[in-house]
Amino acid sequence: MFVNPVGTEVYDEYIKGIIEEIKRPDVEATVTHLNKGPTHLEYHYYEHLIIDEMLHLLKNAEREGYDAFVIGCFYDPGLREAREIVSMPVIAPAETCMHVASTLGHKFSIIVGRRKWIPKMEDNAYVYGLERKLASFREMKLSVPQMVKNPGNTKEAILKAAKKAVEEDGAEVIVLGCTMESGFIKDLIRILGVPVLDAVVISWKFAEMCADLYHQFGLSHCKIGGYESPPQEEGWLK
Amino acid sequence: MFVNPVGTEVYDEYIKGIIEEIKRPDVEATVTHLNKGPTHLEYHYYEHLIIDEMLHLLKNAEREGYDAFVIGCFYDPGLREAREIVSMPVIAPAETCMHVASTLGHKFSIIVGRRKWIPKMEDNAYVYGLERKLASFREMKLSVPQMVKNPGNTKEAILKAAKKAVEEDGAEVIVLGCTMESGFIKDLIRILGVPVLDAVVISWKFAEMCADLYHQFGLSHCKIGGYESPPQEEGWLK
Amino acid sequence: MFVNPVGTEVYDEYIKGIIEEIKRPDVEATVTHLNKGPTHLEYHYYEHLIIDEMLHLLKNAEREGYDAFVIGCFYDPGLREAREIVSMPVIAPAETCMHVASTLGHKFSIIVGRRKWIPKMEDNAYVYGLERKLASFREMKLSVPQMVKNPGNTKEAILKAAKKAVEEDGAEVIVLGCTMESGFIKDLIRILGVPVLDAVVISWKFAEMCADLYHQFGLSHCKIGGYESPPQEEGWLK
Amino acid sequence: MFVNPVGTEVYDEYIKGIIEEIKRPDVEATVTHLNKGPTHLEYHYYEHLIIDEMLHLLKNAEREGYDAFVIGCFYDPGLREAREIVSMPVIAPAETCMHVASTLGHKFSIIVGRRKWIPKMEDNAYVYGLERKLASFREMKLSVPQMVKNPGNTKEAILKAAKKAVEEDGAEVIVLGCTMESGFIKDLIRILGVPVLDAVVISWKFAEMCADLYHQFGLSHCKIGGYESPPQEEGWLK
Amino acid sequence: MFVNPVGTEVYDEYIKGIIEEIKRPDVEATVTHLNKGPTHLEYHYYEHLIIDEMLHLLKNAEREGYDAFVIGCFYDPGLREAREIVSMPVIAPAETCMHVASTLGHKFSIIVGRRKWIPKMEDNAYVYGLERKLASFREMKLSVPQMVKNPGNTKEAILKAAKKAVEEDGAEVIVLGCTMESGFIKDLIRILGVPVLDAVVISWKFAEMCADLYHQFGLSHCKIGGYESPPQEEGWLK
Amino acid sequence: MFVNPVGTEVYDEYIKGIIEEIKRPDVEATVTHLNKGPTHLEYHYYEHLIIDEMLHLLKNAEREGYDAFVIGCFYDPGLREAREIVSMPVIAPAETCMHVASTLGHKFSIIVGRRKWIPKMEDNAYVYGLERKLASFREMKLSVPQMVKNPGNTKEAILKAAKKAVEEDGAEVIVLGCTMESGFIKDLIRILGVPVLDAVVISWKFAEMCADLYHQFGLSHCKIGGYESPPQEEGWLK
Repeated sequence: MFVNPVGTEVYDEYIKGIIEEIKRPDVEATVTHLNKGPTHLEYHYYEHLIIDEMLHLLKNAEREGYDAFVIGCFYDPGLREAREIVSMPVIAPAETCMHVASTLGHKFSIIVGRRKWIPKMEDNAYVYGLERKLASFREMKLSVPQMVKNPGNTKEAILKAAKKAVEEDGAEVIVLGCTMESGFIKDLIRILGVPVLDAVVISWKFAEMCADLYHQFGLSHCKIGGYESPPQEEGWLK
Repeated sequence: MFVNPVGTEVYDEYIKGIIEEIKRPDVEATVTHLNKGPTHLEYHYYEHLIIDEMLHLLKNAEREGYDAFVIGCFYDPGLREAREIVSMPVIAPAETCMHVASTLGHKFSIIVGRRKWIPKMEDNAYVYGLERKLASFREMKLSVPQMVKNPGNTKEAILKAAKKAVEEDGAEVIVLGCTMESGFIKDLIRILGVPVLDAVVISWKFAEMCADLYHQFGLSHCKIGGYESPPQEEGWLK
Repeated sequence: MFVNPVGTEVYDEYIKGIIEEIKRPDVEATVTHLNKGPTHLEYHYYEHLIIDEMLHLLKNAEREGYDAFVIGCFYDPGLREAREIVSMPVIAPAETCMHVASTLGHKFSIIVGRRKWIPKMEDNAYVYGLERKLASFREMKLSVPQMVKNPGNTKEAILKAAKKAVEEDGAEVIVLGCTMESGFIKDLIRILGVPVLDAVVISWKFAEMCADLYHQFGLSHCKIGGYESPPQEEGWLK
Repeated sequence: MFVNPVGTEVYDEYIKGIIEEIKRPDVEATVTHLNKGPTHLEYHYYEHLIIDEMLHLLKNAEREGYDAFVIGCFYDPGLREAREIVSMPVIAPAETCMHVASTLGHKFSIIVGRRKWIPKMEDNAYVYGLERKLASFREMKLSVPQMVKNPGNTKEAILKAAKKAVEEDGAEVIVLGCTMESGFIKDLIRILGVPVLDAVVISWKFAEMCADLYHQFGLSHCKIGGYESPPQEEGWLK
Repeated sequence: MFVNPVGTEVYDEYIKGIIEEIKRPDVEATVTHLNKGPTHLEYHYYEHLIIDEMLHLLKNAEREGYDAFVIGCFYDPGLREAREIVSMPVIAPAETCMHVASTLGHKFSIIVGRRKWIPKMEDNAYVYGLERKLASFREMKLSVPQMVKNPGNTKEAILKAAKKAVEEDGAEVIVLGCTMESGFIKDLIRILGVPVLDAVVISWKFAEMCADLYHQFGLSHCKIGGYESPPQEEGWLK
Repeated sequence: MFVNPVGTEVYDEYIKGIIEEIKRPDVEATVTHLNKGPTHLEYHYYEHLIIDEMLHLLKNAEREGYDAFVIGCFYDPGLREAREIVSMPVIAPAETCMHVASTLGHKFSIIVGRRKWIPKMEDNAYVYGLERKLASFREMKLSVPQMVKNPGNTKEAILKAAKKAVEEDGAEVIVLGCTMESGFIKDLIRILGVPVLDAVVISWKFAEMCADLYHQFGLSHCKIGGYESPPQEEGWLK
């Protein structure tokens, strides 16, 4: 299951289209959204607003037997809480892309819309232990609504920022720091000549792998320590 | 204003007592709690459950003219969101204690109740940029409910863990990693012979300083970048 | 293709068995070995001895249309050279396991046979950018030949070392630091109660994912910069 | 007590003026200077020249019952020696400003007069454990004597350097890396729109907080380990 | 013994000339080359191609009683393997220059020919533990063959890149990142006004020091742990 | 010139004896002491007390034509000031030993007398950029006066601490963290079976190398930036 953690269905079809093209034939994909909440998550308060419904969706997905759950936002909102309340694999785009990027070249750069996004994303890179592989953030000076309105423009802006990252910052891999930057991966790889990671594509393929490992070995995140679940008897987690 | 971000009033008087003893005479202290939510925050899902009401309390506090707001939990729950939605100083116990501790000795150790707490707190140390000053975490193997039930026992457990931190881990400063470890600071300093930071005490005194600077110079956290507020016209932040 | 980079065929069947159990039905697995060279790679000089034949095997595999190549040794021997001479994905067990482990818990420990192994593996953790997620190395005091001779004993030694890592070093994930520690993953997860990464299993599943991405998007490691190929006209790379 | 650790009284009145404006009414402020030594401390040899008299002043201040002592130079000269010979809080501007700055935004930049200053200050950032929160140093190409001669010019130079730090280096907080850059804080905050830390102001307010904690709890730097005092019987410390 | 690890004798005389000028009178210098292999080592595959013969040369040098061995390439090819198979000091130019540079100024920059070189060299800086002293890499956009063809041009390119490193990157020391950048050290120091480290010169002088220590105390790299030799009885190391 | 920076001549002969045994025949060694000051430097205030006379000695040594100057204390007292006021090489034992140790094995441990010493020495390791190569400090619980009184006991204590460092902390190299631990290097290497660095021996041999490079190329520490000298016209540096 891939959730667009925003209160609108408008992205579902688009994301579904991307996933249909890349998913393994033996895998079933559900793409969904939330009933309420902002239509974008540029602000951390907005992340907060959507976490509650998203966590319920996740808890239900586990009950319904899904094998992996993808949080469709590059801030990785609610990741710690999500892994705390379920045992099934929860895939976070930024975490996944940064790790995969680290295996593909010396350093990676993340293309962001606005400066606003950088502090939390850089803190996430620290928390994931990868700041040393991070060449730079490159800003397009585009908000999510602006990116959505004009995809052609977004693609140009990605290319411009990515070229600078490759030429000036030593990046060998480009990570697209928003699920709304998705859909151009083939063109971007062709034009830039370096690996480009689309957050939707990479998260989905990683989720397929995690689902296999979960199926076969029960392998998922650790439930001792940081992701220990709240006790049922306290009655808060339903 | 100091908020105990839990759905119970039972800690208000105790915390109020600690603050009354240490506050400057020219400062007014409000200690409050939430109407709903768990009575402790050992689980990150519980943190999530209380953030919403806490953020509304904070937003109101700003409207009512408070000069500083202390989040009364050592996980620093909702800190990023809190600073995003207001301009007034928001003080977080872990952030404050780790920075103050760094000025008092070579390295500090944090005394925690359970292993569960360490991953998020260590990640916070990374995010605050201070992992190099962190000598160790020392675990008492006590949950918050257990600590609350038997304060004498808690004090003994703190002493035992702190001694090990000082003797085996090279700690020169002890940080008490829970607001529920508060109230013993004088005794602990006397017995251990090293500086001990009580999260309630240090947060409050730091808040007084921040309130002064906010009053006089409008000095508070940066509102450009990571803490930029959501635009009013999007209608989500009220 | 999975290569056991040693001059003996004795491991092929065993490794093949593990892979057959975990591979996707739509994927074809070749497990092979080298014609000459030592039967284990505990020494870096031995790594050197096998790289030449392994690189030729790799170059041929690319010509024959394989989609991904797994270097079957946890030192990740010849990884830089391998990625330099081909465009297809080259999967290295240590790199892969350390990154996957980082997504499954706060910190991981690597179970090694002997102290000898640690310096290169720890240096690899630095190079991969992940030293901060590394809780510890735990040594079993077993050489590879000893491990091979007595698998039951090896399994016991893994369990003992892994328990210490979980209980004393704060590890939330266990990484088995040798392809010869493979085959026990289900039991280990069940007994230890934390995620355990078997280098053969994880490398293979990651290779499947990489093969998909390479197929669909030509996505592989960056060929500008560190992995730039030697020019054909200089005549050394055949 | 705030000491201008230079052999001239000319800065006393100016600094005193700044402190009078910000100090709490219940606090008494002494601003003083040294009898001999250079009139500025741009060179580390000059720092050396003033430490002896400064340490005697400090030792006397402790005897006379002062509650906190501020070293008025951003190199934090003699900090280790100072804390070794007394128990009362010794406040160092760079240490204090870097820690306070870290609580106000994602990263801070330090505005320095000349390149000369950077190596020691950056080493101090390492020692204080905060290099990761340091966005950059920005140089004004002004010596201390030049800054003193033309304050208007200095203010313009600070603004120019600070703007670059905010716009190009990702700084969210500006730290003024010299007590001679003091006195403009209100204007700078207003014009730049980000928090600006004046070393005199922040050190003084932090000293007030430390004095309170020292009074009430005897809380000060650790006297075991790095700051252990020389034994009286050896006769060197008088 | 100084080995030019390339399959050509053309550099021997030139390097010999440099060493003759700097060596102590009581030291005997052998400069040699390999019988086969590429004439430059810009590619990691080329490094691989020369390691075998170089290791045999080293093993023989130890048998013949040499006191120290210098690997004449700034990638430090085969260093781990080399130290594994002998007890005598093995000197690596990058390792040596980075450590010596760290004692001469706040930070150093490495002048490289092409971007291609940077990833391995930066990884080496991590492995040697010195990334924090590394100000930058500066690229001349010259391949080794281009550098060899036109030394005057190379010298100009070094000067240009080094000036930028000093003025823009904060470098206080310049390290020449290729033994083919050797021979200009006097001029470069005079023109740039900062210390410049010639990889041949520094490696040789460091080797003299190591040879003395080896002679007198048997002091060399540790043979327990990472550099433990393969056992003779396994028959691979001859 | 090697200076014992203490106010007693009692160590001169001993140190001179060590140096005579290791120095090159073409090198002249002066070992000297200070006229006043403490007889040991365990306290940072004592370091302060001796720096003034030591700096004058250094300045004179440069005038008299010495080629290198060794500060004979493992705290590296006054190193920044020393390099600021002269151009000739100034060798500091801790800096030198940590860098040389880093070339001889995976990690090193420093054997110290008392816990007191560790904070400054660890901070120095940060400043020198080498904390990652530092396995541990191991404390002998001996003050300098105790070490001096009973050298046999000291040697036993070194052996005991060093063995623990090698066996429990992963150290491959032992660094003796006090010039008073000198004189046992041959025995220690023989008994421990790992490289052991005697601060007097290593500093002296490194000084010989630096003197050669200074002679031939004028190579010494950078005089732009951190080590820029105070201007003569200000009249403080004589």
